[in-house]
Parts: sequence; C-alpha cells; structure tokens
Amino acid sequence: MTMAKRDTYTPESLLAVAVQVFNERGYDGTSMEHLSKAAGISKSSIYHHVKGKEELLRLAIARALDGLFGILQEPGAAEGRAVDRLEHVTRRTAEVLMAELPYVTLLLRVRGNTDTERWAMERRREFDQEVAELLKQASADGDLRADVDVRLATRLLFGMINSIVEWYRPHNGVASEGEQVADAVVRMAFAGLRT
Amino acid sequence: MTMAKRDTYTPESLLAVAVQVFNERGYDGTSMEHLSKAAGISKSSIYHHVKGKEELLRLAIARALDGLFGILQEPGAAEGRAVDRLEHVTRRTAEVLMAELPYVTLLLRVRGNTDTERWAMERRREFDQEVAELLKQASADGDLRADVDVRLATRLLFGMINSIVEWYRPHNGVASEGEQVADAVVRMAFAGLRT
Repeated sequence: MTMAKRDTYTPESLLAVAVQVFNERGYDGTSMEHLSKAAGISKSSIYHHVKGKEELLRLAIARALDGLFGILQEPGAAEGRAVDRLEHVTRRTAEVLMAELPYVTLLLRVRGNTDTERWAMERRREFDQEVAELLKQASADGDLRADVDVRLATRLLFGMINSIVEWYRPHNGVASEGEQVADAVVRMAFAGLRT
Repeated sequence: MTMAKRDTYTPESLLAVAVQVFNERGYDGTSMEHLSKAAGISKSSIYHHVKGKEELLRLAIARALDGLFGILQEPGAAEGRAVDRLEHVTRRTAEVLMAELPYVTLLLRVRGNTDTERWAMERRREFDQEVAELLKQASADGDLRADVDVRLATRLLFGMINSIVEWYRPHNGVASEGEQVADAVVRMAFAGLRT
C-alpha cells in the first residue's frame, strides 16, 4: 500500500501535477488513478478539489488560452502598423509558450475527443485566425513580401513557434534564454536568415 | 468472422497499410492484430512478408531516411556556397516530407522504445547535424545574419519544415501545391516576411 500524503494541494499546485501527467501519458491515457498516484493523495481528495479529470483539463487549457488571448489586448498588439503588431504578437506568443510551457504543450496536443478538447481546438483556431487577420492587414499595407500567401505564412509561422515545445526546457528559469529564443523566432520569420 | 481477402500484397503495398495504422494508433499502440485487420489478411500472411511489426517500422523509417539523406547527395547540396546549399536542402527537405508524407510523419513521431526507434532517432539527429554544419559554414562565410545562433536557427528551421506534416494533405497529387509550400518555407526562412 502506498502512503497517501496529507492533501496540502491548492487548485493551482494540483493542476501543475495533472498537466505533467496529461503531457506524459496523453489526456486519453490518463485515469483518476494515475492522477491520484502522481499527486500522492487519494482519488476522493482530488474530487474534493475538482469534479474530475475533464475539469482539470479545462482549467489547464484555460490558463494557456488566457495567456495567449491576453497578448491580443496588449498595446503592442492593438496599436500601430499591422506588421509591427504582428511582430509583437509573434514574439509574445513564443514568450507565453515558454513561460506557460506545460499548459501550452497540452493545448497543442489535444485531439478533440471530449467537449473540453473541442472547445480548446476551437479557441486555438480563433487565436490563429486573429493572427492570420494581422498578416492579411500587413500584406494589404504592403509591409509583407507580395509573394507571401497569408494562409501558408500563418501556418509556417505557428509551425515554427509551436515547435519550441518539442525541445525548449528552461534551465533555472533564466529569462534571458527565453528572450534569445523569442528573438531568433522574430528574426527568422521577419528578416530571414540571409544577409 | 471477417472474410480474409486473398493476400495480393507486395512488400510495398503492405508497408503502406502498416504505416497508416502506425500513424493513426501510434507504433506502441499497434498490434499484429490491428495490422491484420487493416490489411484484411491473416497474421500468418503478414508473417509471410515480414518478421513482425518492428520490421515494418524499420522498412518505413528506412524509406523516409533514404529520401532525406538522398538530398545531401544531390549536386545542389554538394556544390556551391554553403548558403545556397542550405537553401537547396531546405527546399528539398520540405519536398521529400510532402512526397513521402506518411513515412516522414512516422519518422518524426517515433519515441525510442525499441532498437529500431532508437536507430531512427539517431539517424534523424545525424541529418539535423549535417544541416547544422551547413548553417555554421554559411554563417562563417558571412552569408547569414551575424545575430543568428546556429543551434537555435537549425531547430527553428526544422520546426517550420516538420510542422508541415500537421496540416499538409495532398489533393489529387498536384505537384504545384507542394511547390507552393516549399517556396513559402524557403522565402520565410531565408528572406523573411517583411518587405
């Protein structure tokens, strides 16, 4: 028998454990049993905090989405030329992804088997759509290369940003590492590699 | 009882079925039973072609790797300035990914639980390394922006190219669609989006 530890979890610290398990096993492959084991508390203690694993998923996804949609409310995303707003959103999306790494990783991996997952995918599409609109506007302003297809460019831009979750692991939380990555994303996407 | 169809498979057509099942269920989640059902032939018929599912994985991964490493032998990858060779390899990697979509998708998703998967990951790292060397050389030639970190740029470049497997679906095999995507990758990576 495993020794169950006293339940000293806050909703936030329980969420952090759940998200780690979801990312390791996949949401579908995670049972309340797995969550109980990982947290070291009984299932009934978990039910004291949340209705079940889908609520944990919803809370985790909400945290990722709040971070991403929050970007669109920032002055840098709302004022100025579209191309500069697009660059701001690109940089900040990379930053939020790294700051909220496990939460955004989960958001990017959901597959749509439950209502919560379908909601997550829908909201993610809405975010992509907002960025696509910025690209379209920047293109209409003549600030993007004329040979850029907006739909393709949006996909490749997010492909580049989202790929960061595959390899980025923060070391001792040094902010400068994340800044370097965000700089590199913005440089490659907007100025290109060639001199 | 399911009606088993006559085994008219060639190694290649059986491989195509297996790769589809591997990509849908994950390699770990695929049993010989699943392969037998998907192919519509008995397990013993499959064993007539291959030793087991790991051999199918090996053949599929070999096909993806042959495509990718073949690029490095092309004149465009072997002759000329490093930056032009890098651009050629970038374009061709995107093209091979789209031409061999299910095989490269499988390669990108293996996780390293078997010898074959570990070999796949090792070879994939070797390919990335070859491209990183080209980046380093192009940078030394002064043909890449001085503020580009080679390791980061390699990761973001592959992040952008590899993300194509997430959304690219060839319609009626029109080659021009793939060309548009490859063009967009090369433009964004080397020239950037901004005018």
